[in-house]
Amino acid sequence: MGKVTAVSPLAPDHFPDLPVIDGVRFATIAAGVRYQGRTDVMLAELAPGSTVAGAFTRSATRAAPVLDCQAKIGATSDTGAAILVNSGNANAFTGKGGVTAVEAITASVADVCNIPQSRVFTSSTGVIGEPLPHDRITAVLADLKGALSDKGISDAAKAIMTTDTFPKGARAEVEIDGKTVSIAGIAKGSGMIAPDMATMLVYIFTDAVVSQPALQKMLSTHTDSTFNCITVDSDTSTSDSLILAATGASGVDASESDAFSEALHGVMLNLAHQVVQDGEGATKFIEIAVTGAATDDDAKTHGMAIANSPLIKTAIAGEDPNWGRVVMAVGKSGAAADRDRLSIRFGDIEVAKDGWRSPDYSEEAAAAHMKGQNITIGVDLGLGDGKATVWTCDLTHGYIEINADYRS
Amino acid sequence: MGKVTAVSPLAPDHFPDLPVIDGVRFATIAAGVRYQGRTDVMLAELAPGSTVAGAFTRSATRAAPVLDCQAKIGATSDTGAAILVNSGNANAFTGKGGVTAVEAITASVADVCNIPQSRVFTSSTGVIGEPLPHDRITAVLADLKGALSDKGISDAAKAIMTTDTFPKGARAEVEIDGKTVSIAGIAKGSGMIAPDMATMLVYIFTDAVVSQPALQKMLSTHTDSTFNCITVDSDTSTSDSLILAATGASGVDASESDAFSEALHGVMLNLAHQVVQDGEGATKFIEIAVTGAATDDDAKTHGMAIANSPLIKTAIAGEDPNWGRVVMAVGKSGAAADRDRLSIRFGDIEVAKDGWRSPDYSEEAAAAHMKGQNITIGVDLGLGDGKATVWTCDLTHGYIEINADYRS
Repeated sequence: MGKVTAVSPLAPDHFPDLPVIDGVRFATIAAGVRYQGRTDVMLAELAPGSTVAGAFTRSATRAAPVLDCQAKIGATSDTGAAILVNSGNANAFTGKGGVTAVEAITASVADVCNIPQSRVFTSSTGVIGEPLPHDRITAVLADLKGALSDKGISDAAKAIMTTDTFPKGARAEVEIDGKTVSIAGIAKGSGMIAPDMATMLVYIFTDAVVSQPALQKMLSTHTDSTFNCITVDSDTSTSDSLILAATGASGVDASESDAFSEALHGVMLNLAHQVVQDGEGATKFIEIAVTGAATDDDAKTHGMAIANSPLIKTAIAGEDPNWGRVVMAVGKSGAAADRDRLSIRFGDIEVAKDGWRSPDYSEEAAAAHMKGQNITIGVDLGLGDGKATVWTCDLTHGYIEINADYRS
Repeated sequence: MGKVTAVSPLAPDHFPDLPVIDGVRFATIAAGVRYQGRTDVMLAELAPGSTVAGAFTRSATRAAPVLDCQAKIGATSDTGAAILVNSGNANAFTGKGGVTAVEAITASVADVCNIPQSRVFTSSTGVIGEPLPHDRITAVLADLKGALSDKGISDAAKAIMTTDTFPKGARAEVEIDGKTVSIAGIAKGSGMIAPDMATMLVYIFTDAVVSQPALQKMLSTHTDSTFNCITVDSDTSTSDSLILAATGASGVDASESDAFSEALHGVMLNLAHQVVQDGEGATKFIEIAVTGAATDDDAKTHGMAIANSPLIKTAIAGEDPNWGRVVMAVGKSGAAADRDRLSIRFGDIEVAKDGWRSPDYSEEAAAAHMKGQNITIGVDLGLGDGKATVWTCDLTHGYIEINADYRS
């Protein structure tokens, strides 16, 4: 984008020490797809018998590799598998040429890794509408294969970055029947946003044994309360992809394990939060907890209306406890609301109650909460038991700089 | 907001010379509701027999005066009527106190103007959640009544301003059966946005004779293709109000006149465009024309997804012909789309066709169009006959400055 972006002030202290997941090996390389002087292609090779689940953008203009993955996810197979990701070019809105590129890459990966083409999953992230120079990728596959290492996951987290200011990783260990299984995940992206050079990609690996249907069910359930509950700017990518692979190398079956499912949820939520914390221009991490809605769906609708409101996001950037804008967002969301039962909290401070400013409202106390880096907005509709929590970041000059001031 | 905003670069050259509408008189005064040193209350007195129609925000948290107007619009009456508007305080989310304030103001106006309270319509615009000091308004009503003038409409356009950088007016004359009827309208607002100090208010007057049901029907029909087709930042106000009054003073019945309806549409569209041209921080006026959609509703959904996309609005601010972001917005809108039939134009330049970059795409030609102040985006879905046109402005540092950098 023409500008070196500093690391987000919301970034975690350091990249986590991710565990080795038996049954998956990684390699990265600088293929010059678009960027120079940095790695931009990652290969993950999965052991025979690995199960693979996925969740993908619902965009009607989704990219060729997304459509290819969706067609392949769900099949069962005893063979190995592979995930190939490039950054710098999204291979989106590239017509028949896009399909040709996916076909060429997946065929070559299948050949090099000696697996069926139906077990090769690809993602591309970067500029939309430019033909993907797929020959630059197929030319480096043999080198990638030769470089595979079970310790390569942190390098993989870097190779998939685009406008990200830090690599994103999360881990969990779960004890099942006295044995430990591990989960390690990486992500890139700055939320649901889709600038030229960014989208959201997530890859999570475990050595647990999990059947494909069970793996897909866990992934789909948790996606709704993690990645589908974050937003940076309401713009949905053409390429969002989340792939979860279980190698089974631990020999421990976690298909029915609630503890495993919960740990997986934790890894997904952690990565989702990191994507928001790397939101373009973000200086505040915002949690919006909606309770008392008529239904859970209504709660999420209200939460996302608040999270996507430019006026609320700019107010938070300005450290302004402007709860009137929260009233506005609830009002416009379309979900059920009764103005005279609505209560709003900023942090622990009740700012509005029963349809009016709270009787003991303190502008100073509310303003003090807004000065922090982590902002919590609580909204109670007073209508029922529906609840949802969503996360977003503030809207700052940094967002305008990244997306307007520099030509792509 | 702590900052003196310069006049929008998109403002018209001058306020139009609005015609006198027989049967309506205006007065304005500085009541000190919140602002000092400027007019902030306007009274419009309508002659006996005037018909009144209205369109209002659909917000679930709409303000007390909006609810009061909605309850009154639609009744027929031979008496006079009045419209009382204050700026500086929205009387929104003010609980029972808000209802009390409306009751006090409408009773006093009815008394001073000697009309039924059911014929007094009020609007309030400004900060949300602060009690409206209604006694400051009732204290000046006798003075307002004494100052009524049939030439006061341009002063009225100024008194209702909040964050507006210019007053907004539009006019039309229509010949019906050899006689001329006039339409004059004023508006305030910076789009559908709802910062502390702004909302959208529109008042249109005509001396035509129009029955109340006919007037309401014309207003509702044209609202859909004018004010409901603009957006600045996707945030809907708690107070948006549009009131149309026909005094009948010309003696010319326009209830069935297509020419009158068309002229009214023109005045409404003109005012709607001016609201966008005064969008907070706006430097570009953007028209988005969607054709070939499955239905008109789908076309509008696509158009609004494009118009509300922060990434498209920032790209246009940066004069970047970033059509990939238009593909993204169409994809996320939820309305029917087929990636491989999608075509996109910037001005007269076809940038994408049938799901890929146009074969004779010229980055330079597209970039040249983006340098203008008026940007046109054409999107053809290739699916059917559905069409819609919507209008918005760009998203700039000015928007962030107005809404984040200065505490309200």
